[in-house]
Amino acid sequence: MSENTNEPTPLTDLGEFGLIERLTKDIELKNATSKLGVGDDAALIKNEKAMTVVSTDMLVEGVHFDLLYMPLKHLGYKAVVVNLSDIYAMNAVPTQITVSLALSNRMSVEALEDIYEGINLACELYGVDLVGGDTTSSLSRTVISITALGQVEQDKVVKRSGAKETDLICVSGDLGAAFAGLQILEREKSVFKDNSAMQPDFSGKDYILERQLKPEARKDLIEYFAKEGIVPTAMIDISDGLSSELIHLAKASKVGVQVYEDKIPLDAQTINTCEELNLNPVMAALNGGEDYELLFTLPIQHFEKIKREPLLTIIGHVTDQGSGNNMVATGTEALIELKAQGWQH
Amino acid sequence: MSENTNEPTPLTDLGEFGLIERLTKDIELKNATSKLGVGDDAALIKNEKAMTVVSTDMLVEGVHFDLLYMPLKHLGYKAVVVNLSDIYAMNAVPTQITVSLALSNRMSVEALEDIYEGINLACELYGVDLVGGDTTSSLSRTVISITALGQVEQDKVVKRSGAKETDLICVSGDLGAAFAGLQILEREKSVFKDNSAMQPDFSGKDYILERQLKPEARKDLIEYFAKEGIVPTAMIDISDGLSSELIHLAKASKVGVQVYEDKIPLDAQTINTCEELNLNPVMAALNGGEDYELLFTLPIQHFEKIKREPLLTIIGHVTDQGSGNNMVATGTEALIELKAQGWQH
Repeated sequence: MSENTNEPTPLTDLGEFGLIERLTKDIELKNATSKLGVGDDAALIKNEKAMTVVSTDMLVEGVHFDLLYMPLKHLGYKAVVVNLSDIYAMNAVPTQITVSLALSNRMSVEALEDIYEGINLACELYGVDLVGGDTTSSLSRTVISITALGQVEQDKVVKRSGAKETDLICVSGDLGAAFAGLQILEREKSVFKDNSAMQPDFSGKDYILERQLKPEARKDLIEYFAKEGIVPTAMIDISDGLSSELIHLAKASKVGVQVYEDKIPLDAQTINTCEELNLNPVMAALNGGEDYELLFTLPIQHFEKIKREPLLTIIGHVTDQGSGNNMVATGTEALIELKAQGWQH
Repeated sequence: MSENTNEPTPLTDLGEFGLIERLTKDIELKNATSKLGVGDDAALIKNEKAMTVVSTDMLVEGVHFDLLYMPLKHLGYKAVVVNLSDIYAMNAVPTQITVSLALSNRMSVEALEDIYEGINLACELYGVDLVGGDTTSSLSRTVISITALGQVEQDKVVKRSGAKETDLICVSGDLGAAFAGLQILEREKSVFKDNSAMQPDFSGKDYILERQLKPEARKDLIEYFAKEGIVPTAMIDISDGLSSELIHLAKASKVGVQVYEDKIPLDAQTINTCEELNLNPVMAALNGGEDYELLFTLPIQHFEKIKREPLLTIIGHVTDQGSGNNMVATGTEALIELKAQGWQH
């Protein structure tokens, strides 16, 4: 009817109540423990297992994501996944999330709906209910804060602190890919800045880009543990790079760790991209971040059971605390001390 | 030793891990249900009652608070209290919070510590443990997002939706004071902007300023209900003004409400300040916000028990839905329809 029907709708066109109604109208609670969701002062969750697990993470525009290359739908998806990863790292099953959003007022209602589309997709895939939240305007940048809740039986809880000497050290999936993906995005961004007519060159980078833009949490590994009756002695999710997570786990467990450079799982795209960019792929795994894989320790008697399991790779073993935290270099057998460089946003 | 010892410490001087360690080093878990706090992937909470209650709220600089007149310690305190208020509104006892902070990089470590001092004070007073969080830098404004958890027995849960015809409508405390306090702060801010030599004039305004800057949640009322064996039929916390909360409660319960203008509890400072500013104090109660009092309904048989209880005031009764949501005007007895104006930040 009007020429403007495809124009973005300013956020101010709906009020706070209108916005909440629009975003939550299609929400159906699917988890049996979700007794009351959005629409009251608080959500109600039935305690079915002995323990509730809770974790929170905040993503800030310009620090954790760049809207120039992060599609809004992926942003919503990733914000959920990084929180669920923390719940899985306790060997718990995530059940609910709450979402708080401070939205740049440059954003439209349609942009907000894109974020929620990603949030809802992640909720569906991981079997989690969105039960509460707060949406507000920001005078500047977009901030998204998610809290995830899960439940677990008391004897299934896995902390960082239970690793014992001789335990096997394992990781799920492969490492360094999200970091390699970020380098490609940053490279294409600077090319684009210099010449906006250039089309970004992402050929052969699909896997590492997806690892950066749309990571997954390791639901499958937690399900594998449950099915096999395995309870790791310690576990942590790899958000800041393998090196700093190994040090966290070792410190909390009062042990040392020894891992082998040639055992660290790397995808071919990660290796190729790092070579192309003159980076060491092992350093990407050790000091890159955002892999959202799980690092865990298992008693050595599980060796036969797990040695051919494609979900995981054995990368080393637990030592006494006095031996420190080391990597055995490929070829030379030299011990390299691991440093907690973490990941600088 | 150096001339600079009293200079603020830039946030960048500590890393993320250093910051977390400094802020959480003194935290002691006091609540019996808190089994594991900050320092692992997620916090662990023992489920002692049948239900977990969860609520989240985000405060954004320039939208919800102005650092020109909001002391940082009060900001931390208030951010906790507004969340606990939602937990009490379900008739639950709050037990844990998580805190996510995106900090303007103009802020110093000392400023951050001031915010945490307020957070810790609120935790202590309300018997709640800080069990998790995320601290990150923001390229622009400060954002604080808190999630509160509480527990409650299934038969003690109070939603918005249980009000029945003939029920008494009650509120705790008094209303409109936080709004009156905000008007005074805004007035003194513009005076100060015009002439920075002027000292703000806050004499005789202590109560309304405290209501705005350092509100409290109604722990005492929930304890009174437990002691007296009272379970309200419906309850909601008053964050957006009495009028819109009455409408929320009526809509959720599929009833109408009738309240009496002359019963709405107002403090003398609220009345005096509104008169001074040419505002109607009843409108401040109806459409102002941030009172964090509780609005609830009780079966009429409780009348004798509660009629002299200083914690609450009976302001009206529940009617059938067809009668709508009305206020009986003082003097004229005219019915004024309540509108959900809410509170514009």
